[in-house]
Amino acid sequence: MIDQHIKTDIEIAQEAPLKPIHEIAEQLGLSEEDWEPYGRYKAKVSAHTLKRLQDTPDGKVILVTSINPTPAGEGKSTVTVGLGQALNRLEKKTVIALREPSLGPSMGMKGGAAGGGYSQVVPMEDINLHFTGDIHAITTANNALSAMIDNHIHQGNDLDIDQRRIVWKRVLDMNDRALRNIVVGLGGPANGVPREDGFDITVASEIMAILCLSTDIDDLKQRLSKMVIAYNRNKEPITVNDLGVQGALALLLKDAIHPNLVQTIENTPAFVHGGPFANIAHGCNSVIATKLASKLGDYVVTEAGFGVDLGAEKFLDIKTRAGGIDPSAVVIVVTVRALKMHGGAAKDELKNEDIEALKRGMANAEKHIETIKSFGLPYVVAINHFVHDTEREIQYVQDWCQANGHPVSVAKVWAEGGAGGEDLARQVIDVVENGKKDFKYMYDLDAPIEEKIETIVKKVYGGSGVEFSAKALKQLKEFKENGWGNLPVCMAKTQYSLSDDPKKAGRPSGFTIHVRELKASIGAGFIVAITGTVMTMPGLPKKPAALNMNVNNDGYVSGLF
Amino acid sequence: MIDQHIKTDIEIAQEAPLKPIHEIAEQLGLSEEDWEPYGRYKAKVSAHTLKRLQDTPDGKVILVTSINPTPAGEGKSTVTVGLGQALNRLEKKTVIALREPSLGPSMGMKGGAAGGGYSQVVPMEDINLHFTGDIHAITTANNALSAMIDNHIHQGNDLDIDQRRIVWKRVLDMNDRALRNIVVGLGGPANGVPREDGFDITVASEIMAILCLSTDIDDLKQRLSKMVIAYNRNKEPITVNDLGVQGALALLLKDAIHPNLVQTIENTPAFVHGGPFANIAHGCNSVIATKLASKLGDYVVTEAGFGVDLGAEKFLDIKTRAGGIDPSAVVIVVTVRALKMHGGAAKDELKNEDIEALKRGMANAEKHIETIKSFGLPYVVAINHFVHDTEREIQYVQDWCQANGHPVSVAKVWAEGGAGGEDLARQVIDVVENGKKDFKYMYDLDAPIEEKIETIVKKVYGGSGVEFSAKALKQLKEFKENGWGNLPVCMAKTQYSLSDDPKKAGRPSGFTIHVRELKASIGAGFIVAITGTVMTMPGLPKKPAALNMNVNNDGYVSGLF
Repeated sequence: MIDQHIKTDIEIAQEAPLKPIHEIAEQLGLSEEDWEPYGRYKAKVSAHTLKRLQDTPDGKVILVTSINPTPAGEGKSTVTVGLGQALNRLEKKTVIALREPSLGPSMGMKGGAAGGGYSQVVPMEDINLHFTGDIHAITTANNALSAMIDNHIHQGNDLDIDQRRIVWKRVLDMNDRALRNIVVGLGGPANGVPREDGFDITVASEIMAILCLSTDIDDLKQRLSKMVIAYNRNKEPITVNDLGVQGALALLLKDAIHPNLVQTIENTPAFVHGGPFANIAHGCNSVIATKLASKLGDYVVTEAGFGVDLGAEKFLDIKTRAGGIDPSAVVIVVTVRALKMHGGAAKDELKNEDIEALKRGMANAEKHIETIKSFGLPYVVAINHFVHDTEREIQYVQDWCQANGHPVSVAKVWAEGGAGGEDLARQVIDVVENGKKDFKYMYDLDAPIEEKIETIVKKVYGGSGVEFSAKALKQLKEFKENGWGNLPVCMAKTQYSLSDDPKKAGRPSGFTIHVRELKASIGAGFIVAITGTVMTMPGLPKKPAALNMNVNNDGYVSGLF
Repeated sequence: MIDQHIKTDIEIAQEAPLKPIHEIAEQLGLSEEDWEPYGRYKAKVSAHTLKRLQDTPDGKVILVTSINPTPAGEGKSTVTVGLGQALNRLEKKTVIALREPSLGPSMGMKGGAAGGGYSQVVPMEDINLHFTGDIHAITTANNALSAMIDNHIHQGNDLDIDQRRIVWKRVLDMNDRALRNIVVGLGGPANGVPREDGFDITVASEIMAILCLSTDIDDLKQRLSKMVIAYNRNKEPITVNDLGVQGALALLLKDAIHPNLVQTIENTPAFVHGGPFANIAHGCNSVIATKLASKLGDYVVTEAGFGVDLGAEKFLDIKTRAGGIDPSAVVIVVTVRALKMHGGAAKDELKNEDIEALKRGMANAEKHIETIKSFGLPYVVAINHFVHDTEREIQYVQDWCQANGHPVSVAKVWAEGGAGGEDLARQVIDVVENGKKDFKYMYDLDAPIEEKIETIVKKVYGGSGVEFSAKALKQLKEFKENGWGNLPVCMAKTQYSLSDDPKKAGRPSGFTIHVRELKASIGAGFIVAITGTVMTMPGLPKKPAALNMNVNNDGYVSGLF
């Protein structure tokens, strides 16, 4: 039965009895030297704690991923939080590790990014706004670098930077389409050198990817120093090291590198730290947070952006490599609603039972399950239960999984919190303890870039091949000459389809992936292969969510979610 | 005798034994509900505490100001901190209230903005970098508004905003000359409407001025709603209220409005909160911080930007009006070095004794003393002692003051901390307890704008009159028609001279002030009168300080100061 009034996320979050953050830290066995408070319910845990705990055995890392997302919503963060809560209820000491949300989009569309219902991380108002300032620190470091580049040219351009080939863009944590394409340096000789430029949203900055892949400040600085900012007039890459400002950039990130500790509404500890794009970057929270969580918990539940084809593949091929992380199992989130959309159902008909659409849509889940199997990892399919799902629909998905030998569980974590995820948690524990695991990367780093891309396209997407544009072919050659051939590949592809055509739902086959352009993220340590258009600066809708936002004189927030 | 090795500010700061911030809060009588920690040594004290303490009598507010600044440095913040420490040593419960520094300039020029020597607020690395995120919150609110403006035009422009008359600019906390004049909205119809724009440094945002003049969140929201962002094609002002986003902007500032509590290296409590420009804005820390300090201390020592002509005049005519603050006395900081420069000495000859230059330079101090007298406030002249000052020079200034009936004290607060300011503190207590006070504003709000400007020019600057450009005259008319005639005036003038010519040191006379343009800061609640060129976006030097900055793997900072 459905309640007459379903509570909103913010109502649930505001009613939750939070523990002071020092209790959460103590619960994790952290000493006072390990962490600093940021308000009553947030803390930063020092990255140095990792060093202190280096001999502690790692907990089991569980990755939560999903089928290709649809406008119906999958609730991957909600399942991540709910599973973490459930594992704790089953006496497994569990720590959650999530990405931190970008503020910009919250001004446009209603809806936070901290789980939902009775599976949320809190305080959600803070997490969705300025939080502990990490993203602002990245904005500052990114734009300090831009200012240094333009200043270098203005002051004589000793490095012979070709101002037509500056690849480093400015950033803001804002949805602001008017800043996508701009001209800077106007107004005469005192005001710099005119050139084309543009702003991305901050989470698209390579510095965000770097922060999330670094293992400590030295590694951060090394990575920052390798970032390619421009090319000179001989088309040779110019790096941050050539400008000599990696120390200053690292200084601006000295606090941002420390993971943020919060709690769920059931008081399960959660690190919420770092949130790079899942297309032009790898879409996972920080390596430091995940590693720290694995030192502090028996279990870590973490997530990656978008579906298996983008988020999980990058988690497994990029993040685990950078961080030396050994994943134990994968949870693949499906919903009846999303599966029906993959089977051709329209968004406004999702409330109606439609077993046929569901049946067709299972093909999308099937492909992703195959991919996780080919990574050699145990898995559980989690059916994230929505209020309008019918019993027959849920039963159909369960039966399909069981018939095909896939462990499956119905998770009612949105409505019931950890209690609704206990069955899922039991199954996860089972596959971790008894499942067969033979984790291997999808490709060798030594393979040529084009071969790595082809492997992903064929084995992860189920496509038939890759087509490179003339520009991409030229870049492949240049990148090899620059010595970047043995980096992993980061695919920038639509999240809505296994193919590069967002309209092809379900499990398309026989398709070719078109690589339009490559991007060298040498600091992050990967080559981005761009297919289609990638939006790195969103815009605001006609009626932005900001119009309904308010805060009253007592600090009470409304309209944010 | 001078030490062989004079310790740097950061060495002194890093050696200081800090108290955990909860001890500082307890020392002030704050309860746990009143404040939240931001790390071990920073806190935000809730603005609501003011309400709880509304019946507590106000402490004495001491304003620290100075003669016109010179490249020799005056050390106003250092005297403010040192005097606070000294008053505490004399058993007067004292709280310091300072502006928070902007991060951008620290990337360019070495040198922090948190006092110096043994009179500093700490932790200086944090205060000079991201601190508690206030300035980042202002950047975000400012740019959210910009995005809303461009989005409004892009989505149909119901308000008929004239895109050639958008007065709201974007901001970044960065020295970045290439952003001064830009064109946004390029790249075709999906990417907004092309128009001219530019970035100011964040502290120049009207939102910073508003944050510093608001008395609570409701007042903040009221002020935000009144900000003029553009004019329509009938040249009528368009405000934030027309766009309807004051709630969202206030929400983005919900934490920034709470004053930041830190300590000095002698553990004197200090609020460091808000830092608007002292030319196009009023150059004082927040009203809430000053008022809160006055509820928590017997004495508040606070400062205003630049010299008496800009900072003190605005503190007394704008800030005290907005906040209902009743100042008790003024400390006018002079240095031998600066006075010699006002008397014509060159910067590289300041180490040489030069009584003649000093004698001529006293004229600058004399004018500022007269101004403070005409505000009806008791005052003390503080000679901020520098290591190279000779005894004869110091004696000359003391004798001059005594001969003219001005209370004077030599403050050795840089070298000796609070102990070096005890005599100054005693004199301040004396003028507060026994001095004659008859505080009055320099002008009536009811007077026409041009008359208010003329009053300031004649009475505060000692000029003979004002000349308005054709543009300014047109604006005077328009502003009156818009109903803005009874706001106070905020003069944007060079800080280096009493006149509008930075080269005229000392006490020029017979000069005319040229008002080039007016600016309506209706949310802040003042009309800015711009004389000469005002730089609202600094640039970086040829060798930016960032080149020497670093942080090591243990988080140890170098090169910042």
